[in-house]
Amino acid sequence: MRVPRRIARVLEEEESFLIAAHIDPDGDALGSALALAYALHALGKKTFLYCRDPVPEFYRFLPGWRRFSSRLGTAIRRDPVLILLDCNSPERAGLGDSRFRKSVVIDHHETESGFGSLRWVVPDAAATGMLVGSVIKALGVPLSRPMAVNLYTAIAVDTGTFRYSNTSEEVLTACAELIEAGAEPDAISVKLYETWAAERFRLLIRVLNTLDIRDGVAMTSVTQKMFSETGTRAEDTENFSNFPRMIDSVDISALLRETGGGLWKVSMRSKGAVNVARVAEHFGGGGHRNAAGCRIKGGLAAVKKALLAKVREQQHKKKRGGA
Amino acid sequence: MRVPRRIARVLEEEESFLIAAHIDPDGDALGSALALAYALHALGKKTFLYCRDPVPEFYRFLPGWRRFSSRLGTAIRRDPVLILLDCNSPERAGLGDSRFRKSVVIDHHETESGFGSLRWVVPDAAATGMLVGSVIKALGVPLSRPMAVNLYTAIAVDTGTFRYSNTSEEVLTACAELIEAGAEPDAISVKLYETWAAERFRLLIRVLNTLDIRDGVAMTSVTQKMFSETGTRAEDTENFSNFPRMIDSVDISALLRETGGGLWKVSMRSKGAVNVARVAEHFGGGGHRNAAGCRIKGGLAAVKKALLAKVREQQHKKKRGGA
Repeated sequence: MRVPRRIARVLEEEESFLIAAHIDPDGDALGSALALAYALHALGKKTFLYCRDPVPEFYRFLPGWRRFSSRLGTAIRRDPVLILLDCNSPERAGLGDSRFRKSVVIDHHETESGFGSLRWVVPDAAATGMLVGSVIKALGVPLSRPMAVNLYTAIAVDTGTFRYSNTSEEVLTACAELIEAGAEPDAISVKLYETWAAERFRLLIRVLNTLDIRDGVAMTSVTQKMFSETGTRAEDTENFSNFPRMIDSVDISALLRETGGGLWKVSMRSKGAVNVARVAEHFGGGGHRNAAGCRIKGGLAAVKKALLAKVREQQHKKKRGGA
Repeated sequence: MRVPRRIARVLEEEESFLIAAHIDPDGDALGSALALAYALHALGKKTFLYCRDPVPEFYRFLPGWRRFSSRLGTAIRRDPVLILLDCNSPERAGLGDSRFRKSVVIDHHETESGFGSLRWVVPDAAATGMLVGSVIKALGVPLSRPMAVNLYTAIAVDTGTFRYSNTSEEVLTACAELIEAGAEPDAISVKLYETWAAERFRLLIRVLNTLDIRDGVAMTSVTQKMFSETGTRAEDTENFSNFPRMIDSVDISALLRETGGGLWKVSMRSKGAVNVARVAEHFGGGGHRNAAGCRIKGGLAAVKKALLAKVREQQHKKKRGGA
C-alpha cells in the first residue's frame, strides 16, 4: 500500500504524538495503535496511547497494551499531533472537545467525516493494520516482534483470521512477513478464540437462545439483564454475531445489544449479498460492506421490524442491480 | 519445498497415473489429489482419481470432485503409476490387493509403512497440499484456478484455516500465490464452515444449554429426543465438542450422546493436559491423546460421575508425573 508522502513526512518531522483508538476498541484499533507507537518510539519520538474505553480482557496479550490511557492530561501538555486510527472522527475516538494543532487520520472505514489535517482512508484495505504496516515500512523501521504481534492480531481480527472476502494476496503476504518477524499464528488464535471466561461462554449460550431467523437475517439479542445475571459486559459480545453465520440460509447476522435508555446497538455481519453499511447509515451508523453497526431506539420487537424493513430494501435494490 | 528430482522425473516421463486419496477423505487428501490431476492433465497425461469412500457433501465444491471413482476397473487396465496422496500405505487408501508396477508416495504423516518405489514424506509440511504445490511448480505447470482452489482448501483444512501451529510464513506465502491464481478465501471458508443447516445449529444451541463444567471438564449432552425435535441425526453433532474448548478453564470437552438402550457415546477432546485415550480405554473405548471416545451405560448423572472419576484419576497421574 502506497503511503501518502505527506503523512510519512509528518511522522518523521514531528516529535510528539497522541495515538487514539476508537471507543469500544477492537483488535485492529488496538493492534494498529500499539504497532505504530512502537515504530515511532524506535525513531525516538514521544508517543501517548489513548483509548477512552478499557482494553478488553482478551486483548491483554498484545505487547504494550498497558500503555493505553483513558486520560488525556499529560499527553495534551506536550502539544502532540493527533493520530486517529481505525476511525476518522474525534467523536468516534471519544476525544470530547480537545483541540489539536495537527491531526492525521489513518483508517479503512467507508463512512467518512471530513476531519483531519491529513487523511489516509482506504476502504479497500482489509484492516487499519495493513495501512500501519505500510507506514512502518515507509518510515524504514524494521519490524520488531511486538510490532508483528500487534499487526498480525489487527489483521487477523478484521479478516476473521483469513476467512472474509477481504483476505487478499496482499493480506497473506503481509502476514507471512509478520510471522517471519515473530508473530505466532497459533498463540494469537488461542488468545483470540480459546481463552473465553466461562461467564462469557454462558452469555453466548443465552444470546444464541434468542436466535430469530427471518428472510435470511439471523437476529440475536442481549439485554442488560443478561449481562448482570452472567457477570459480563458489552465487550464480551465481540464476535457473537459470527456464530449464526455458520447457517447456510443466513445472509446477515445481526446482534442487538441493549444499551439503556431504550436504545439498541446493532452489529451486523453480512456474507456479502447485502451491503450492511447502507442499512446502518439509514439509522445514523456506518461501517463496511460486510460489517457495520448503528443504534436504533425502541422496543426489541419494533427495532427488529425496522431493521428487517431496511434490510429488505437493500435486498431488493441488490436484485434490481443497485448498490 | 524442494521436490525430489526422481519424483518430478517419474511424473514427467510416465503417461498414466492412478491418484489415490485415503479412506474417510479430508480436504487435504481430496484437494491435493485433484490439483495434481489437473496439473498432470495439463501436461497431456492420463489420470484416474480413486477414493474408496464418497466425497463428503461439504467438499462437493472442489473443482473436479466428480472425477473421483470408488472403482479401479478402467484405471487398472491402463497399467498406471500409483500416486498415494496424504497417506503412505495401500491399506490406508483402501486399495485392497491391487498391484502396481511403480508407486509414488507424497505425504506429510509420520511414516508408518515402507511402501512405495518413490517416497516423499515430509512430516514438517503443514499439508500434503503444500507438497503438491511444490510438485506443480517443479513440473513448470502454471497454476490454474481449479488447481488453486483445490490446493488452498487442502492447506486451509490442515492448518485450521491458519490457526494451528503449522501456519508458517511458507504456508501464507503459498496461499497468497493461490489467491493470485484464483482461489477465493471467503468462498472456500463459507463452504467449509458456514453451510450448516439451520436445524443443526438449533441442535447445537440445545446441546450447549446442557453445559456442565466440573474440574475443568466441560460436559454437554444430546438426547434422542433432541434429535427428533430438531430433525437432526447423530452425524450432525460432529465438532460440537470443540465449542466448549473456547473456555480457558476447560481442559477436556466431552459430548455425551444417547444412543439407546441406556447407552451414552462419549466423545472427548483434550487441550493436552490429560490423555483422554486412557480415560476411554477404561470404558472399553480408545483413540488418541487429545481425541478419544467410548460408550458408558447408565443414567446421565451416573455416566457423568463415572467419567469424571476416571478423568480425575488421569489428572492425578499427570500431577504425579505419569502418563
